[in-house]
Amino acid sequence: MNRKLCFTLFTLSVLVLCAGLALATKDPELKQCKHQCRARQQYDEKQKEQCARTCEEYYKEKEQRERHREGESEEEKEWGGRHEWMNPGEPAEKHLRQCQRECDRQEEGGQQRALCRFRCQEKYRREKEGEGGQHNTQEEEEEEEGDEESRVTSQHGRVAFLPKFTQRSKLLRGLEKYRLGILIANPQTFVTPTHLDADAVFFVSWGQGTITVIRENNRESYNVKRGDIIRVPSGNTFYVTNTDDDEKLYIVKFIKSINLPGQYEAFYGAGGENPESFLRAFSWEILESAFKTKRDSLERVLFQQDQGAMVKASKQQIRALSRSQEGPSIWPFAGESRGTFNLFGKRPSHSNNFGELFEADSNDFRPLEDLDITVSYANISKGAMAAPFYNSRSTKAAVVVAGDGYIEIACPHVSRSSSERRHQGSSTREEGSATYHKVSSRIRTDSAYIVPAGHPVVTVASQNNNLEVVCFEINAEGNIRFPLAGRNKIFKVMESEAKELAFNTRADEVERVFGNQDQDWFFKGPSRWHQQQQGRAYE
Amino acid sequence: MNRKLCFTLFTLSVLVLCAGLALATKDPELKQCKHQCRARQQYDEKQKEQCARTCEEYYKEKEQRERHREGESEEEKEWGGRHEWMNPGEPAEKHLRQCQRECDRQEEGGQQRALCRFRCQEKYRREKEGEGGQHNTQEEEEEEEGDEESRVTSQHGRVAFLPKFTQRSKLLRGLEKYRLGILIANPQTFVTPTHLDADAVFFVSWGQGTITVIRENNRESYNVKRGDIIRVPSGNTFYVTNTDDDEKLYIVKFIKSINLPGQYEAFYGAGGENPESFLRAFSWEILESAFKTKRDSLERVLFQQDQGAMVKASKQQIRALSRSQEGPSIWPFAGESRGTFNLFGKRPSHSNNFGELFEADSNDFRPLEDLDITVSYANISKGAMAAPFYNSRSTKAAVVVAGDGYIEIACPHVSRSSSERRHQGSSTREEGSATYHKVSSRIRTDSAYIVPAGHPVVTVASQNNNLEVVCFEINAEGNIRFPLAGRNKIFKVMESEAKELAFNTRADEVERVFGNQDQDWFFKGPSRWHQQQQGRAYE
Amino acid sequence: MNRKLCFTLFTLSVLVLCAGLALATKDPELKQCKHQCRARQQYDEKQKEQCARTCEEYYKEKEQRERHREGESEEEKEWGGRHEWMNPGEPAEKHLRQCQRECDRQEEGGQQRALCRFRCQEKYRREKEGEGGQHNTQEEEEEEEGDEESRVTSQHGRVAFLPKFTQRSKLLRGLEKYRLGILIANPQTFVTPTHLDADAVFFVSWGQGTITVIRENNRESYNVKRGDIIRVPSGNTFYVTNTDDDEKLYIVKFIKSINLPGQYEAFYGAGGENPESFLRAFSWEILESAFKTKRDSLERVLFQQDQGAMVKASKQQIRALSRSQEGPSIWPFAGESRGTFNLFGKRPSHSNNFGELFEADSNDFRPLEDLDITVSYANISKGAMAAPFYNSRSTKAAVVVAGDGYIEIACPHVSRSSSERRHQGSSTREEGSATYHKVSSRIRTDSAYIVPAGHPVVTVASQNNNLEVVCFEINAEGNIRFPLAGRNKIFKVMESEAKELAFNTRADEVERVFGNQDQDWFFKGPSRWHQQQQGRAYE
Repeated sequence: MNRKLCFTLFTLSVLVLCAGLALATKDPELKQCKHQCRARQQYDEKQKEQCARTCEEYYKEKEQRERHREGESEEEKEWGGRHEWMNPGEPAEKHLRQCQRECDRQEEGGQQRALCRFRCQEKYRREKEGEGGQHNTQEEEEEEEGDEESRVTSQHGRVAFLPKFTQRSKLLRGLEKYRLGILIANPQTFVTPTHLDADAVFFVSWGQGTITVIRENNRESYNVKRGDIIRVPSGNTFYVTNTDDDEKLYIVKFIKSINLPGQYEAFYGAGGENPESFLRAFSWEILESAFKTKRDSLERVLFQQDQGAMVKASKQQIRALSRSQEGPSIWPFAGESRGTFNLFGKRPSHSNNFGELFEADSNDFRPLEDLDITVSYANISKGAMAAPFYNSRSTKAAVVVAGDGYIEIACPHVSRSSSERRHQGSSTREEGSATYHKVSSRIRTDSAYIVPAGHPVVTVASQNNNLEVVCFEINAEGNIRFPLAGRNKIFKVMESEAKELAFNTRADEVERVFGNQDQDWFFKGPSRWHQQQQGRAYE
Repeated sequence: MNRKLCFTLFTLSVLVLCAGLALATKDPELKQCKHQCRARQQYDEKQKEQCARTCEEYYKEKEQRERHREGESEEEKEWGGRHEWMNPGEPAEKHLRQCQRECDRQEEGGQQRALCRFRCQEKYRREKEGEGGQHNTQEEEEEEEGDEESRVTSQHGRVAFLPKFTQRSKLLRGLEKYRLGILIANPQTFVTPTHLDADAVFFVSWGQGTITVIRENNRESYNVKRGDIIRVPSGNTFYVTNTDDDEKLYIVKFIKSINLPGQYEAFYGAGGENPESFLRAFSWEILESAFKTKRDSLERVLFQQDQGAMVKASKQQIRALSRSQEGPSIWPFAGESRGTFNLFGKRPSHSNNFGELFEADSNDFRPLEDLDITVSYANISKGAMAAPFYNSRSTKAAVVVAGDGYIEIACPHVSRSSSERRHQGSSTREEGSATYHKVSSRIRTDSAYIVPAGHPVVTVASQNNNLEVVCFEINAEGNIRFPLAGRNKIFKVMESEAKELAFNTRADEVERVFGNQDQDWFFKGPSRWHQQQQGRAYE
Repeated sequence: MNRKLCFTLFTLSVLVLCAGLALATKDPELKQCKHQCRARQQYDEKQKEQCARTCEEYYKEKEQRERHREGESEEEKEWGGRHEWMNPGEPAEKHLRQCQRECDRQEEGGQQRALCRFRCQEKYRREKEGEGGQHNTQEEEEEEEGDEESRVTSQHGRVAFLPKFTQRSKLLRGLEKYRLGILIANPQTFVTPTHLDADAVFFVSWGQGTITVIRENNRESYNVKRGDIIRVPSGNTFYVTNTDDDEKLYIVKFIKSINLPGQYEAFYGAGGENPESFLRAFSWEILESAFKTKRDSLERVLFQQDQGAMVKASKQQIRALSRSQEGPSIWPFAGESRGTFNLFGKRPSHSNNFGELFEADSNDFRPLEDLDITVSYANISKGAMAAPFYNSRSTKAAVVVAGDGYIEIACPHVSRSSSERRHQGSSTREEGSATYHKVSSRIRTDSAYIVPAGHPVVTVASQNNNLEVVCFEINAEGNIRFPLAGRNKIFKVMESEAKELAFNTRADEVERVFGNQDQDWFFKGPSRWHQQQQGRAYE
């Protein structure tokens, strides 16, 4: 099974990259890259300058690369050429290409075209996996129940969610309650009040703004900036304002559903025609009685809004919304459920020249407790890597917010043929033997991937950019990160005899080999960057 | 999906009304109506008298109405004409009518006929929903595993359960562990000892009696009356006696299964032929050794009972059973798990001329804690309504115990066509837009309905009767009821600018419209009672 | 449904017995039998001697019986003739026999042959149950996802697991997270370091050895012996050494999965070719960077091991591994998570001449708390029986570790025909009537069986051997064992009137019949041992 579980991880990642679900757009990329350079504590001024130059070079090179790709839609260009590591060589892929060309001919809207192309890809993937017709039917049914990918698309911003994990594979059903999404609001934009039938944790990955949550009888407003975490409990009405004049506001959303696993709905109370206020679902005589108001007065209020869920706000409105702090005067003192926590306000739990790790668990931010998650942020320096490690209990759901690089995961390998042989009783392998294979994927801004508990993983930044990843570690209580290399690797505490027996080698040789790495958690990365040359799917 | 989720709610309700699962019979209706008049604290003597007269008038009118309905079976008459708001106009419904006429010809027992008719309806519903053959098969399979609706039917009373929620729709799978049922015991009736492989909460909605629970080494007997809540943990043997000479005893049962989601079994230890004692499943040599007693002696005890699970008790037996209080002398002082809690012994949490709400959570009655439910009882005055509101986390499972009225629920609407369009990539809606539709249903004594978390709902009593509803709110911890109208509505605390932006209207206009209602939670209802005229399904 | 639920229990048991999944081999049987005699506290010297003689006699007789069975494979003989209570009479069984004979012809390895035979049996069982082709397909799919039965087979020992409970029947889905397995290590054998993506509780049922667990930064080693319980949390690397010169080491494993219900994987970090180290899944350039070591050095360490997951250890190595106690010096004082607990170090919770019950819950051994299980060990004297009882909340997963006997379980009976009749509305049973049927199975060393919550069960030891059963009771919190016979039976506290009404008999007669048994929990067993003669499945 785990062959598939890991494969799922990979497709999930590709999915994000290929399916028009890309969670951000490229425009802030250069700016963000430069920002990272400036924010780097370990860099001196000269290094910062050089870093900024590299940003510019990289960005220029990327633009050129994109301009050269012909025969691809505008849409693809905008998304930064994310298909580049699809496998172009396989003959069967012709069908895929044909299907996608159809899309390009028939569909007009860039997003629609991308979705069409995505469906081609899905069909192709299933073909490859040899899953027959019946299965497709079932999946399609689920989709109907289901879950559109893009919730809100507007000139003022966007709310997008990854498909349900279980829609990708029933092997991700351990995550069926959870969803990952992003909210992008343009400068000076107001996102109208909503409540969800789901618990949410927001992580501000870029920009600044105000988030307001209406709790029982009071309003709590928080001015938020990059690194802020806020929990919005199920049913609590919230609204978001991007208060900045220039920068977009990016919020990564982590959702835990309440009613149905992995499904949730947004309820707009305040609204009108678009977004429709849910009040309009009630009969007029009900509304008249409830509000003790005549229908024509109600209509004057409940029919005005037609600009969608994101609207442009005036400077005065922005000022008022970002000033109106009901909560913060109280909340910093209420340890129990203080409103926000800034991940970067805390010292990194691990930091060296090769990277730094920030994390917040329920001790730092109590609202994380009943969701049983940890939020972490790894910033891996360009050319560096994170130590290979595994989580003892947590499953990691990760979103790349800046930079690029690649991951490798070790997955227990149960090849179909060997398992069949075993079942049919003709296996000749009498010895017990677990084997593992590598699942690898390039990742870059907006990639999402899943690492199941117990599975060793390594993350490597590219030579050009720092790699910044925000992670939600689900099932956090009692979780331990076990590093496989570095000063505190798990092999360190084994007796010599155990090493001898396990590796079938002299213990001193084992110790010499595993004892070289003197750093912890972040290391110098591989000098030749094998993956970059490969340019294809790593299955 | 939520279109369906809400639809489910509706069919569940209709189901109860149409399927012979009606949870009570009409006879105590007049009595109960009058009782409510007397129990009304806000009424003066004159009002009470007038109230009682209205009861009589309503009841008379209802009887007449029923007498006039011709061509309907006796059964339907007995159930008070519950089909009246089925949609009679649709052409496809002819099939349904034919199918049901078949039932009336072929089936003799009233209940059997009703079940037959119900199955027609189900078939018809599926046809309408366009669910193909395969699905039906699956559903039928589940039914086999499954779950009969009526557990015990006897001349002395009845135990009936709603079908598993998931049997109605897999969209209710968030409730898969729970079941709702009712026990009705005739006067002077003993319900034989049983244990369930499920946790149960009983709510006495009418009558009085004794409930005895055998805990580890002692017996706890409780004299119960209307409003009493008692928890019977899984595996604890319990028995019930209706100690009254005239009144039936009504107990609403809320069940949380232990072994299999939504399935549970009753185990009769004491019994004989009918109900069969489970002891009789063991081999005789086992029983002889276990009880150190010869087979013929055992047979003298284990073969006598053949009267079923409910038996008539003599006055002396009743007296002994209702006197034998082992528990109460101790329990009132043991805060931890005192046996019963009377909902009406507590001040209502909200009360005005238009209604009152009683609620018990785990602070009031600790045994509710690990079931994570709240039990509440809303008594909405005739002609009044409860404020539109939603639960932030809880799903409400409600049973109407007296009166009639209607509900409206706002449901997020994902029309199949639009969702298909989106998937096929030809949608023209570029703006994000949530829309909602109204799901509405008439409710009356014995209706059951489900309101999922986050979904706004409004409940309205008829002009003739108070509407009394007992609710089990599942997933109670941290739940907040958010009112949408009244003094503490959620719009109240929003900044002017947020209102302006959300409603796209001047803030003072918004405030004027939403500021009129000066009551909380219970309001004067709509003066023209639109629903009554409509006489059809509200989909 | 419960008819099936109970049936499942039976097939699970047969499965274990017939499917080559037998969890132990017979060789230590005689030794263990004698050991039990010596360990018996209530026996005087003479009794102990007699007991030991009976062991020898029984064993001799058994060997003879086995020698006489001709036409059976060696394999079957080794497993002690476990097929003897399969139903040999049924005509349809011919197909099964043919299928199995095929296996014997075609397959060479004993285990392969057994697996082949098992698949015959499964096929046959499905045929009998009349489950059509579609279902099979589904099941097979799940198996692919799924779960081989034998994880490690080596000349030095074995790790075997029961198939997922849900693979046997979806009616066991309440147990879907759990697995039962066994580890058998030959004398002086080292089981290489592994971590699982699952929580595990180990129970040492025979032999002695050392279990080492690597927690965050330290190693905890425990010398373990029969009766020791140890918890290995998910992700913690552990290794096991059988330190004895002669005895095998038997460990019963209880697993709760983390990633996917009922599925887990073993991750070998230290290893080489076989077991493969998961480190080898990573790219060489990753490993070189992570360990700051050249590839050729890494290869010298990561390619040596090819002897499998169990390797022979030298006496010196054994001595070093069993001596190296990092943990114990600290742990006995740390109440929270002290490493091991010996079940036999505690006084039995019930004990008399007919048997004794040892149990450990989270009060005894805190690590059991978050798994919510109780571990217990029943030793039923030969010729005796355990009281009929049921668990109020717990489901019992039991493994017989020594002896033989049989179980009877009372299962609510919902015959398909009656349930169909009810659904079709033509039932004539108007009276409510629960009925129960007996599910019975012989059990012996290595049998496993499941008893769902609420279901009455009785366990009987044979006339020849003590019956020793280790049980994991799942869903332990708040569970009560309710005895149905003996001094504290549940009928004891009922009022006379309740007994009269329930049994429809004079109360004094009920009391006389149920009052004879003056023992508690363990009784003298049936004198004629009915089951033994029966020699067939007890469905």
